[in-house]
Amino acid sequence: MNKIVYNFSAGPSTLPKQATAEAAAAIADFANTGIGIMEMSHRTRPVEGMVAEAESLLRELLSIPSGYEILFLGGGASLQFCMVPMNLLGSNASADYTDTGMWANKALKEAKKFGKVNVVCSSKESIYNHIPKNFEQTPGATYLHLTSNNTIYGTQWKEFPKANTYLVCDMSSDILSRPIDVSKFGLIYAGAQKNMGPAGVATVIVRSDILGKAERDIPTMLDYRTHIPEHSMFNTPPVFSIYVVNRVLHWLKNLGGVAAMEKINAKKANLFYDVLDNSKLFKGTAAKEDRSTMNIPFVFREDAIAADKKEAMEKKFLALAQEKGLEQLKGHRSVGGFRASIYNAMPIEGVEALAAFLGEFENLAH
Amino acid sequence: MNKIVYNFSAGPSTLPKQATAEAAAAIADFANTGIGIMEMSHRTRPVEGMVAEAESLLRELLSIPSGYEILFLGGGASLQFCMVPMNLLGSNASADYTDTGMWANKALKEAKKFGKVNVVCSSKESIYNHIPKNFEQTPGATYLHLTSNNTIYGTQWKEFPKANTYLVCDMSSDILSRPIDVSKFGLIYAGAQKNMGPAGVATVIVRSDILGKAERDIPTMLDYRTHIPEHSMFNTPPVFSIYVVNRVLHWLKNLGGVAAMEKINAKKANLFYDVLDNSKLFKGTAAKEDRSTMNIPFVFREDAIAADKKEAMEKKFLALAQEKGLEQLKGHRSVGGFRASIYNAMPIEGVEALAAFLGEFENLAH
Repeated sequence: MNKIVYNFSAGPSTLPKQATAEAAAAIADFANTGIGIMEMSHRTRPVEGMVAEAESLLRELLSIPSGYEILFLGGGASLQFCMVPMNLLGSNASADYTDTGMWANKALKEAKKFGKVNVVCSSKESIYNHIPKNFEQTPGATYLHLTSNNTIYGTQWKEFPKANTYLVCDMSSDILSRPIDVSKFGLIYAGAQKNMGPAGVATVIVRSDILGKAERDIPTMLDYRTHIPEHSMFNTPPVFSIYVVNRVLHWLKNLGGVAAMEKINAKKANLFYDVLDNSKLFKGTAAKEDRSTMNIPFVFREDAIAADKKEAMEKKFLALAQEKGLEQLKGHRSVGGFRASIYNAMPIEGVEALAAFLGEFENLAH
Repeated sequence: MNKIVYNFSAGPSTLPKQATAEAAAAIADFANTGIGIMEMSHRTRPVEGMVAEAESLLRELLSIPSGYEILFLGGGASLQFCMVPMNLLGSNASADYTDTGMWANKALKEAKKFGKVNVVCSSKESIYNHIPKNFEQTPGATYLHLTSNNTIYGTQWKEFPKANTYLVCDMSSDILSRPIDVSKFGLIYAGAQKNMGPAGVATVIVRSDILGKAERDIPTMLDYRTHIPEHSMFNTPPVFSIYVVNRVLHWLKNLGGVAAMEKINAKKANLFYDVLDNSKLFKGTAAKEDRSTMNIPFVFREDAIAADKKEAMEKKFLALAQEKGLEQLKGHRSVGGFRASIYNAMPIEGVEALAAFLGEFENLAH
């Protein structure tokens, strides 16, 4: 297929072309060994070196201070929903959770299996269209849990609150999109399949002194302390997925790191939000001050399309977009309409093409 | 690198060349969509169809009866060491475990966190060089756990015992190497990275009527019942790893399925065991009747090499082997010497090349 395709999927999603090309080449021959990356034992120097390099690149890119460990684990961020409270939350203790979206809600529900959960704020009633900012933390709560970017609703914490103790944060959909002050966090976790790599690996960044305090008998594989001394090699890690992460991190470093990435992301997002804000047909759904630079949900303006025409017009929009190689724009069912996910690896040309298409469609609809 | 390399790694290990080539191609463009397999949402028809096909191919190849569900999960077989007893073993119940190797031993240790474990037999004292055959099952035990093939020690259950209730089996290192009667088993699990695909996914085959009886509050992601109705798509599955499994299963089907594979495996293993049995320099370490067709550990005969020369000779053997493209032959430290892992995807030419090298080395040593 030769048509240029821009893939706006919310995840798994677009990866840097250079990284995927390197991954494909390494499947045939990794590090000039004659053995493919999927076929090489994790107990070999080339693989151990590659995983260690991924770890140190991530440390460098996010300025992760000493005292923090980096893990690459199987099972995705959903597994972290239970691993976090299993490791951190004593059964008689409580933790504060912010309810800013479907994934935040899943995280807090899972935590209830392990201790007391205080839902300190929620934007559920307004279909999670904003980030609640004024809320009280619970005295004595072990940690405050955030979801830094809400993929479905297109909202993002622009400034992280200061926790009484430490923050725990699901950064699955915006890790590496901007600089962060890691020292505010006790634990950061992220599924790789948006900004870091393919599905099949999650990264965990954890301040090691917060571990071992929940006084619970934790299954070996679910205990962060199992994996730390082994540098994610306690059992066979998802080697290939980590390799792709390694290549994505190289790509990001060459591009200038997360500070440079943040500028590019702002440029891409502003370009598209400007189109929405100046459109008579489309509008964004998230509160302006909380708009995500990663996921942009948008819908038809109620004053532009009659309710009984909406569904047919949405189908037409998606069909025409697809003809132009603009893929995966359907919105999540809970928000409706459309969503453009423009993660780190989405080139500005993709956003420009989508913006141009919105203009064309608007003209067509009139 | 143009030299032909045969990779005898115990895992991750050799995959069929056709499958790895298809995987590399799909990284650039999957199913003629213009989107790579790592970048495509799991909620798309091409990916859902691919995962469903992997499921049905596995069902066909292993003749999995109705009543059994097939899952593809992240985290590897090591995660199953806890998921199995968490889901099946009540805290006041007991299970029988056979101690036939390091991995079997890890499985039984983990199960102790959830209920009573009866170690019904062990070959630990003889460095796991055989499969104990005469043992009593415990009346009332929930299940009998086996490790079908012991990767490190090169032993394999040739006939599975009949369980009083049902068998639970770790088949990580010999699944799909031979036909099995699935109906004897309540649950089979296997990390993919030997006979099925890359590291990063494990398959679970489970008779659904044994679930939900342990009366324990199971974390969502660790409960098999979460994943069954979602066909392994409850959360983002390790899509790329499952795709490689899909291609490996296709390869195996085209080759004639597991019955044909069993014959090829027997031919490869017999060829190599014959060399060992007729050698004045080398010998196998596993009891003859329990010899694995997958992993063949071998050492220098004590009467051929003086103890003080052994280490230097081992190094020489490995260095010369590597020069000839025969890679990853070092034995596990607990057995010493050498190990040739000749899984499904190892071509007979690789075993012939290794056999020829053993002959050459033997001549050289005299």
